[in-house]
Amino acid sequence: MKKTIALLPGDGIGKEVVDVTVEVLKAVAEHFQHQFNFNYGLIGGDAIDQKGNPLPEETLEICRNSDAIILGAVGGPKWDNNPVELRPERGLLALRKALDLFANLRPIKTFDSLLDSSPLKKEYVNGVDFIIVRELTGGLYFGKPSERIVHEGQEAVVDTLLYKRSEIERILVSAFEMAQNRRKHVTSVDKANVLESSRVWREVAEEVSKRYPDVELEHMLVDNAAMQLIRSPKQFDVIVTENMFGDILSDEASMITGSLGMLSSASLSSDGLHLYEPVHGSAPDIAGKNIANPIATVLSAAMMLRQSFGLEEEAKAIEKAVDNVLNSGLRTADLTEAGKAVSTKRIGEEIISAL
Amino acid sequence: MKKTIALLPGDGIGKEVVDVTVEVLKAVAEHFQHQFNFNYGLIGGDAIDQKGNPLPEETLEICRNSDAIILGAVGGPKWDNNPVELRPERGLLALRKALDLFANLRPIKTFDSLLDSSPLKKEYVNGVDFIIVRELTGGLYFGKPSERIVHEGQEAVVDTLLYKRSEIERILVSAFEMAQNRRKHVTSVDKANVLESSRVWREVAEEVSKRYPDVELEHMLVDNAAMQLIRSPKQFDVIVTENMFGDILSDEASMITGSLGMLSSASLSSDGLHLYEPVHGSAPDIAGKNIANPIATVLSAAMMLRQSFGLEEEAKAIEKAVDNVLNSGLRTADLTEAGKAVSTKRIGEEIISAL
Ligand SMILES: CC(C)[C@H](C(=O)O)[C@@H](O)C(=O)O
Ligand SMILES: CC(C)[C@H](C(=O)O)[C@@H](O)C(=O)O
Repeated sequence: MKKTIALLPGDGIGKEVVDVTVEVLKAVAEHFQHQFNFNYGLIGGDAIDQKGNPLPEETLEICRNSDAIILGAVGGPKWDNNPVELRPERGLLALRKALDLFANLRPIKTFDSLLDSSPLKKEYVNGVDFIIVRELTGGLYFGKPSERIVHEGQEAVVDTLLYKRSEIERILVSAFEMAQNRRKHVTSVDKANVLESSRVWREVAEEVSKRYPDVELEHMLVDNAAMQLIRSPKQFDVIVTENMFGDILSDEASMITGSLGMLSSASLSSDGLHLYEPVHGSAPDIAGKNIANPIATVLSAAMMLRQSFGLEEEAKAIEKAVDNVLNSGLRTADLTEAGKAVSTKRIGEEIISAL
Repeated sequence: MKKTIALLPGDGIGKEVVDVTVEVLKAVAEHFQHQFNFNYGLIGGDAIDQKGNPLPEETLEICRNSDAIILGAVGGPKWDNNPVELRPERGLLALRKALDLFANLRPIKTFDSLLDSSPLKKEYVNGVDFIIVRELTGGLYFGKPSERIVHEGQEAVVDTLLYKRSEIERILVSAFEMAQNRRKHVTSVDKANVLESSRVWREVAEEVSKRYPDVELEHMLVDNAAMQLIRSPKQFDVIVTENMFGDILSDEASMITGSLGMLSSASLSSDGLHLYEPVHGSAPDIAGKNIANPIATVLSAAMMLRQSFGLEEEAKAIEKAVDNVLNSGLRTADLTEAGKAVSTKRIGEEIISAL
């Protein structure tokens, strides 16, 4: 198989974890006789510094000419005081919008070898296996107006939570489709006792659920969901929610597995060009030290092989190699005491030799 | 001291937990020679059934003629399919707005005797002691428009996150004032990398912090905060945030202590008429069974004695009595295995005899 992959390492540890992932993909290509071509693009702070734009047009072109995209992370203190349009996150948000990457999938699955890393007691997290489906191109993130105004004669500010019914529908369809291949349970999270958008969300969820009679639909208020994720995470199979709720709940849920450094994600578009990235950020405090955990990005690449290229065997091979490395006891600094940790590159090499 | 207290038991277990609390307050009055008059008002589902309005004008009058308000809880499946204006929660939201109860305080403090009840490991929660200051009368909860619209020719829906600068300022002032009497650290939670309202929030936080040079101000993104609450809850002293973020984070944080049934709250207004209520809801599934945990409401009454009436000794007496009862091993069903649990009333009696 011949595929072109856009690589957007971005800022901070983004570069290091993407470097490792590329090596792993090269090893997979060699072993399974595929040809992967890599095209690098600028995004985030780096792109601001070099092109004066967090998402240069060239980068979009590189993405559009690829079969899938792997992103590292964006952001850093260097750009924190920039005007809004010149912040690294703008590049990421603009990319999501430009490529219509509307469905963000974050699997939350505990690793047996890491059960002790969670702040939660073992009996709560043991066997957890769910996926968060977050709407990624609507809601408060993109609604207009989002600006300073005068309200009742006073200085005020407004943001807008806007959804088209069709946007709500397509993300719910994604969630139900996914649930059909899993344990057939969808938890739709909203705030229907307060928000009109949530009441529409709930209506659409009911409508869509009629098309999937084999899947059970449960509604849960977002405050309760924030609690249930800690109280009994095993109850969940597929969680689907709007953009901001999904942002909050998925970062919270990451604590179940113990480290953000393990969590992969996929952002799916309607036309088949998908993006894969670790859930963690650019971690400027540890950037350039060769101590970041590359596993989240490596596992995101496995998601890519499965979802974008249909390469199930290859995806499994990576996942198995990661398991083996973890079982051998090797860990980066986020998962073990200082002194015992191994480097980013070393984890990459071990994954490759475990392949 | 002579004080008038408005009692709004509301729905579900609201009545049971308020009943116990009234008995405790009567015992305190007798012991410390105060006179507490109680005026009952309808709110929520009960008010809908009897008056066709979740917040009848009489109830508002009763509150306005009192020195403080104790609320149980509102809501239940009976009213879940009512039109928005006839839902129990509307009564609560309208009360908050009518009395300008803008600052919701939720203390999160672990009880030594309950350390094992948390889903989190003991070493994570042991010694946790922070308070969440949630803005309660602005943001997405009250902004207009909140309605179905046509957008780009399609069916859509909009909610509005609106804040006046003065609303942001007064809640931050409350947080800084509180921090001065605590460990002098404020964590201001926002989503400044996405929302304009959060950028204004951050600016105002910086401005206000200049007036409190002894208090340290830290900004934290809401997704990170959702994670940090689980990863290292001990880092927090005072958390301040807008209405919706506060709703989500405070329910999440309740899991640190193990049970919602223990968490009290105060909602403060600018003119001195404050409301006290448990953080938990009306729990229709266990209502009327005499098994609900009344401690959250009893502790809310202690907050009232301290905050509204300046009765520090009396507040401490209640808190100490609750501690003693817990240390004696008595627990309601939310905190222990079935079979070992004691009733709502029994806990009340034990608190009174421990006074
Ligand atoms: C960087 C930021 C804009 C982004 C978001 O809020 O979506 C991040 O937190 C995420 O979850 O991918
Ligand atoms: C009942 C509901 C409207 C309310 C809220 O969202 O504020 C509740 O969850 C709370 O936190 O007091």
